[in-house]
Amino acid sequence: MKIYQKEIEITQRKRGFHIITNEISGSLPELRSIKAGILNIFIKHTSASLSINENADPSVRDDLESHFNIMVPEDGGHYLHTAEGPDDMTSHIKSSILGCSLNIPVSDGKLNLGIWQGIYLCEHRNYGGQRNIVLTLSGI
Amino acid sequence: MKIYQKEIEITQRKRGFHIITNEISGSLPELRSIKAGILNIFIKHTSASLSINENADPSVRDDLESHFNIMVPEDGGHYLHTAEGPDDMTSHIKSSILGCSLNIPVSDGKLNLGIWQGIYLCEHRNYGGQRNIVLTLSGI
Amino acid sequence: MKIYQKEIEITQRKRGFHIITNEISGSLPELRSIKAGILNIFIKHTSASLSINENADPSVRDDLESHFNIMVPEDGGHYLHTAEGPDDMTSHIKSSILGCSLNIPVSDGKLNLGIWQGIYLCEHRNYGGQRNIVLTLSGI
Repeated sequence: MKIYQKEIEITQRKRGFHIITNEISGSLPELRSIKAGILNIFIKHTSASLSINENADPSVRDDLESHFNIMVPEDGGHYLHTAEGPDDMTSHIKSSILGCSLNIPVSDGKLNLGIWQGIYLCEHRNYGGQRNIVLTLSGI
Repeated sequence: MKIYQKEIEITQRKRGFHIITNEISGSLPELRSIKAGILNIFIKHTSASLSINENADPSVRDDLESHFNIMVPEDGGHYLHTAEGPDDMTSHIKSSILGCSLNIPVSDGKLNLGIWQGIYLCEHRNYGGQRNIVLTLSGI
Repeated sequence: MKIYQKEIEITQRKRGFHIITNEISGSLPELRSIKAGILNIFIKHTSASLSINENADPSVRDDLESHFNIMVPEDGGHYLHTAEGPDDMTSHIKSSILGCSLNIPVSDGKLNLGIWQGIYLCEHRNYGGQRNIVLTLSGI
């Protein structure tokens, strides 16, 4: 078993759902040396999250953003944690719903994603800044 | 450390939440050779998902289906991604909420689930077809 | 690669979201021997869950509790699984939304969490009792 771990920076994205599959793969050439294993992707923030969803039609990302804004409304009126603006507490809630880590099988030197699957950075803040992600790859 | 990886097919289920614990365990006799480890289960689709919940009363699965249909309604009116029918975009949203992978401890040759826990395939499409799952088992 | 696995008990918490980072780290001195790895934390229950969110302002935990009570209301009227009281089926739903396991990178002998991240036990029952958690730490 081998293990590789590194921390990368994802440049600021605007609020919404964004595909980052190529940024993840591109920053991890060690993938090619793994025949069978797991890649853990972990975002070190509480107002952005990671998910896997469709990598083709961009309207899927738009609909995810609009649906999460309905399910976790900024004008909910029931939030106590409001000091950092209306997009802060909602970002924390979205982050817990979606999660801050992914575990993806690696097979024959590549991420073993389904043909329609892409890795999403879900930016919930209006101005989230740069995001830091830890990649941990283990396998044979 | 040993690692085993294989891809299995889950035959088509109707829309809803289904227990597949025995299908997973049954397709992985290598479980018995692991004293301490982790099983990663990864579904290669964006309109079905995996979860862990109660393995006894079937009404829990029915209530999950009806609650997710309320939380992510097909007649929401705010979806742009509608070309594949009203159950398509909602399936993508449910998939991101529930997630596409599980990580379960393996102890003394068995999945170390709680007594009431079962592995669920969550089929969000009306006609989802066969689903492909990657199993990655590592441990000592 | 080394692997350590143990089962711990978390004493009963009241319903709500609670930080348990120190309880997790404190029960796993083996963390200090891992230079690069992953800690899997798995809760063996279907009415409590695990999440990662802000470790500072307690109002974040209060808002998560109140928002989940709105998103998964006890007076929903659509539940069939009601024999164990109004907080039972809602707890199952919250557990599937939040998830029962976490995978956190371990670097230089410590959990590699972001500066604002803490590990949450999410107790969804009014009287949940003691909760059992499996810790599986692997790495070099």
